[in-house]
Amino acid sequence: MPIDIDKSLTELSGLGADLYGKDFLLTWEKSDAELKSVFIIAELLKELHARNIPLDMFRTGLAVSNFRDNSTRTRFSFASACNLLGLAVQDLDEGKSQIAHGETVRETSNMISFLTEAIGIRDDMFIGKGHAYMKEVAEALDDGFKNGVLNQRPAIVNLQCDLDHPTQSMSDMLFIKNHFGGFDKLRGKKIAMTWAYSPSYGKPLSVPQGVICLMTRYGMNVELAHPEGYDLLPETIKVAGENAKKSGGSFMVSNSMESAFKDADIVYPKSWAPCKVMERRTQLLEKSDQAGLKDLEKECLAQNAKHTGWECDEARMKATRGGEGLYLHCLPADITDVSCKQGEVSASVFEKYRIGTYKEAGYKPFIIAAMMAACTKKNPAKVIEALYKAGQKRVL
Amino acid sequence: MPIDIDKSLTELSGLGADLYGKDFLLTWEKSDAELKSVFIIAELLKELHARNIPLDMFRTGLAVSNFRDNSTRTRFSFASACNLLGLAVQDLDEGKSQIAHGETVRETSNMISFLTEAIGIRDDMFIGKGHAYMKEVAEALDDGFKNGVLNQRPAIVNLQCDLDHPTQSMSDMLFIKNHFGGFDKLRGKKIAMTWAYSPSYGKPLSVPQGVICLMTRYGMNVELAHPEGYDLLPETIKVAGENAKKSGGSFMVSNSMESAFKDADIVYPKSWAPCKVMERRTQLLEKSDQAGLKDLEKECLAQNAKHTGWECDEARMKATRGGEGLYLHCLPADITDVSCKQGEVSASVFEKYRIGTYKEAGYKPFIIAAMMAACTKKNPAKVIEALYKAGQKRVL
Amino acid sequence: MPIDIDKSLTELSGLGADLYGKDFLLTWEKSDAELKSVFIIAELLKELHARNIPLDMFRTGLAVSNFRDNSTRTRFSFASACNLLGLAVQDLDEGKSQIAHGETVRETSNMISFLTEAIGIRDDMFIGKGHAYMKEVAEALDDGFKNGVLNQRPAIVNLQCDLDHPTQSMSDMLFIKNHFGGFDKLRGKKIAMTWAYSPSYGKPLSVPQGVICLMTRYGMNVELAHPEGYDLLPETIKVAGENAKKSGGSFMVSNSMESAFKDADIVYPKSWAPCKVMERRTQLLEKSDQAGLKDLEKECLAQNAKHTGWECDEARMKATRGGEGLYLHCLPADITDVSCKQGEVSASVFEKYRIGTYKEAGYKPFIIAAMMAACTKKNPAKVIEALYKAGQKRVL
Repeated sequence: MPIDIDKSLTELSGLGADLYGKDFLLTWEKSDAELKSVFIIAELLKELHARNIPLDMFRTGLAVSNFRDNSTRTRFSFASACNLLGLAVQDLDEGKSQIAHGETVRETSNMISFLTEAIGIRDDMFIGKGHAYMKEVAEALDDGFKNGVLNQRPAIVNLQCDLDHPTQSMSDMLFIKNHFGGFDKLRGKKIAMTWAYSPSYGKPLSVPQGVICLMTRYGMNVELAHPEGYDLLPETIKVAGENAKKSGGSFMVSNSMESAFKDADIVYPKSWAPCKVMERRTQLLEKSDQAGLKDLEKECLAQNAKHTGWECDEARMKATRGGEGLYLHCLPADITDVSCKQGEVSASVFEKYRIGTYKEAGYKPFIIAAMMAACTKKNPAKVIEALYKAGQKRVL
Repeated sequence: MPIDIDKSLTELSGLGADLYGKDFLLTWEKSDAELKSVFIIAELLKELHARNIPLDMFRTGLAVSNFRDNSTRTRFSFASACNLLGLAVQDLDEGKSQIAHGETVRETSNMISFLTEAIGIRDDMFIGKGHAYMKEVAEALDDGFKNGVLNQRPAIVNLQCDLDHPTQSMSDMLFIKNHFGGFDKLRGKKIAMTWAYSPSYGKPLSVPQGVICLMTRYGMNVELAHPEGYDLLPETIKVAGENAKKSGGSFMVSNSMESAFKDADIVYPKSWAPCKVMERRTQLLEKSDQAGLKDLEKECLAQNAKHTGWECDEARMKATRGGEGLYLHCLPADITDVSCKQGEVSASVFEKYRIGTYKEAGYKPFIIAAMMAACTKKNPAKVIEALYKAGQKRVL
Repeated sequence: MPIDIDKSLTELSGLGADLYGKDFLLTWEKSDAELKSVFIIAELLKELHARNIPLDMFRTGLAVSNFRDNSTRTRFSFASACNLLGLAVQDLDEGKSQIAHGETVRETSNMISFLTEAIGIRDDMFIGKGHAYMKEVAEALDDGFKNGVLNQRPAIVNLQCDLDHPTQSMSDMLFIKNHFGGFDKLRGKKIAMTWAYSPSYGKPLSVPQGVICLMTRYGMNVELAHPEGYDLLPETIKVAGENAKKSGGSFMVSNSMESAFKDADIVYPKSWAPCKVMERRTQLLEKSDQAGLKDLEKECLAQNAKHTGWECDEARMKATRGGEGLYLHCLPADITDVSCKQGEVSASVFEKYRIGTYKEAGYKPFIIAAMMAACTKKNPAKVIEALYKAGQKRVL
């Protein structure tokens, strides 16, 4: 349903959120008003795009994409977001560049930023590294801006790190907010963030971590469920618990998919690697221990194989609220008999919710654009209003 | 010679062609009026570009390029076309992306399209696959658009498949149309689409197939000539025959370069692989049978080597109409003593027609842009007229 | 300090420099007025960018980047420059393209240029090749433009060749010009362009060559110092000598870092490979003699290792003018104990001048943009004035 542009702009102005000059790295570093401002901007941009209003608030300017892990979806979401705002994407491909030859992060961060307005970074493979890398880049940019090297301080957007995946969890949130009819309707709803079996290995922890840390802020009852040993990073468990307490929701961890799915309004079954495995993997990668890495993969896949029962199938979905719980996934899902023999979700369940998951993903370009707009504009509401009122057409 | 903009716009409006919301995959799926509309738009865009008129009918928007085969020319033509219309190109590199990991076409097609206006696909290596893949993407986009996943339905442009190469054949057509002074002047002209020897192997069939299927629609006498066994796909032979009948031209297949060149107004000598070989190759590739593929290549090169006499040299050109037949090539040509020891064309013939082949290629960016404009605009004439009348300069 | 826009525009107009329709390949092919015009345009663009004025003098148009050697900095500088002017970058990746398959430079140059306004080329690995390649592309473009293949003649910008690195040396020059307070303040200043030890091998000669050929034009006393055998190309030594004579400065070559640093106002210590080694390397590369290349690398590294004393450390800096000589580097520097065990510069010296080197690099995007603007605009002053007076904002 179309949103009321003027009402949203008024609400945005009234929030008093101030992300200007900041980065967007972790949702739990941001206030409720700041998150709200990103949500409102995202929905405004999505609506205005649908209404054929140009949103190019930058007339030239670069956005740097720095993907330290492969990606199709996030790469396209980022490219879409940048293009929507009028920025041109320039990839920083460290494989091809001189960074691989011992160059410091500090220097490179400045060298790529002379005409850059935003930097999107995906660095999710190494526990203890991804977020730290983004902070390092941020400090280098502060240094360059303060010292007059840069005319502007580019905003960093976390496109997935070892701790959080804010563009994903906030897209998920907008999808369920609209599905249930508003943020207030989420209060008291149960969401099951559960592990699910996949024949692959080493999937990042940032999606479940991001989800439990964000959903607990809206008065929801969040149950995290996984087989024993498949723990998330302790600091994110702590954040989720504190958030639940503050918001009047609840947070619990179990080792039972049944428990989690029971009467759940929302389920998010998804594979990940145990954080202990990810930590060992990081160490082995640092030592370039190829044999050790192969052994670890073998061990981990064998471990996974004990939990093939963790599949989201029709029987499990029957146990959700009225048998009609909402299925979420960040995509791509490992679909049994479709993308693999045995996976995270059965083909029939996925097919039922497929279009929903596509729409869930459809918020991401606008969430990314909203983060960039919020972090680079003193008054995003005013900028968006100006574009809206200009009466121009994006597509002739 | 510059075209009359107003006259062309009037002619375009009068055609009543409606490609809006459609894809451009095969010329033989399109009506004469639809082809005509693309030709007129292409010439309008080319002329307005030369007159320094901005043609950015999209103010932001992505165009996805999906090259499943290497390309320089087509890649640049596509990038040029997109840029001309105001779209930013985002490459879908399946080698680097998660598509390689079992993701479905349906899902990816939607994931890359949230803010996408056009998708260019080159998939010409596998008989029975390329066109089928494009249709599959098209269905996925229909599904996503119908279900509200996408705000807009991106138009697919075939940048070369196993069946057709419409952006090439239509560029060729504009070149000969202008060379001879109009579409009506082509009536009764003889064009020889002939095989030619090349030391390489596995060249796609889509160029000769595209040419015989398109040129037969304009009352031309089309002779396809190749050594025995170097057949094109039967369905394209059928289309060419039917088209010739309808248009009052003719279509014949021979095994003689002499026959084809005799009194030809136009010659198009170019190497390709026999469709039987391409089919076996597809099967071997599917089985990843590297040894089989090597054997096939060896066999095929040996077979080719029997036909080194199929070269377009000065003696052969003498046999064309008045010794002055027009030489066409899609480039790059295998030029004897230039790019190889023995190739498709002698150095002196190529040099004589070199600038012509460059101009022939020069239509391609505008043909691609025209296809995109025709498939995404309800009234392309009105859009172009608005840009023309706005009196802006593309380059200050 | 902000520059006076109107004064700069007047000065620019008054120069009567005419680079329109030309390429920018070597500084020593350009008149003093032409160089001056590029400097003024670069500073205008930099200032107007800082003032949030849009500088998109192209409303659509491609810029081709052709990097035959890896690069982060120059790639980003080029992308930034193109984006600033309104051009979209399209990479010509010869590894991926059909150029690798025997295609001629002449043909490709035209095929990539139908809608192209500028081409940036980096080709610095092979002595006798890089500049020659750029000239070949230039001739191909002249041919295509003259024969009506191209609507416009794209301007070629040398992003580093075997002879010169004009975008680097001119950025260096703007940095020192502003550091000392004007071109006239450089007269009589001593600059030491010296070799420095690096554990790497095969660094191009174009930076020192570019520096000695440019700095000698401004009445400076230029001392080139390197260990015996680490000669630059003789033709650049000749140019530097002639330039010094004309400008009233001086040029000398020594084999002593001490001599060069003594009372130097500016030092530029940087590693490079002896031109004899680069020539042998080119020959070996042409023969694909892998064993020979490995032997040469080993020999060259062993040779380098005899000169680890050529490091810019605090003791050496003390010998410069008042102990406060200005340190320059094109980055990335090989910093002792930071990026390597033993390198070109000590960590403390680099840290002292680090921000300066970043600012030095910060001129490059604007120098590149200025070269493109100067070579594609009949009256760059008028174009820039129009953008300045339009009163638009680049970032809303």
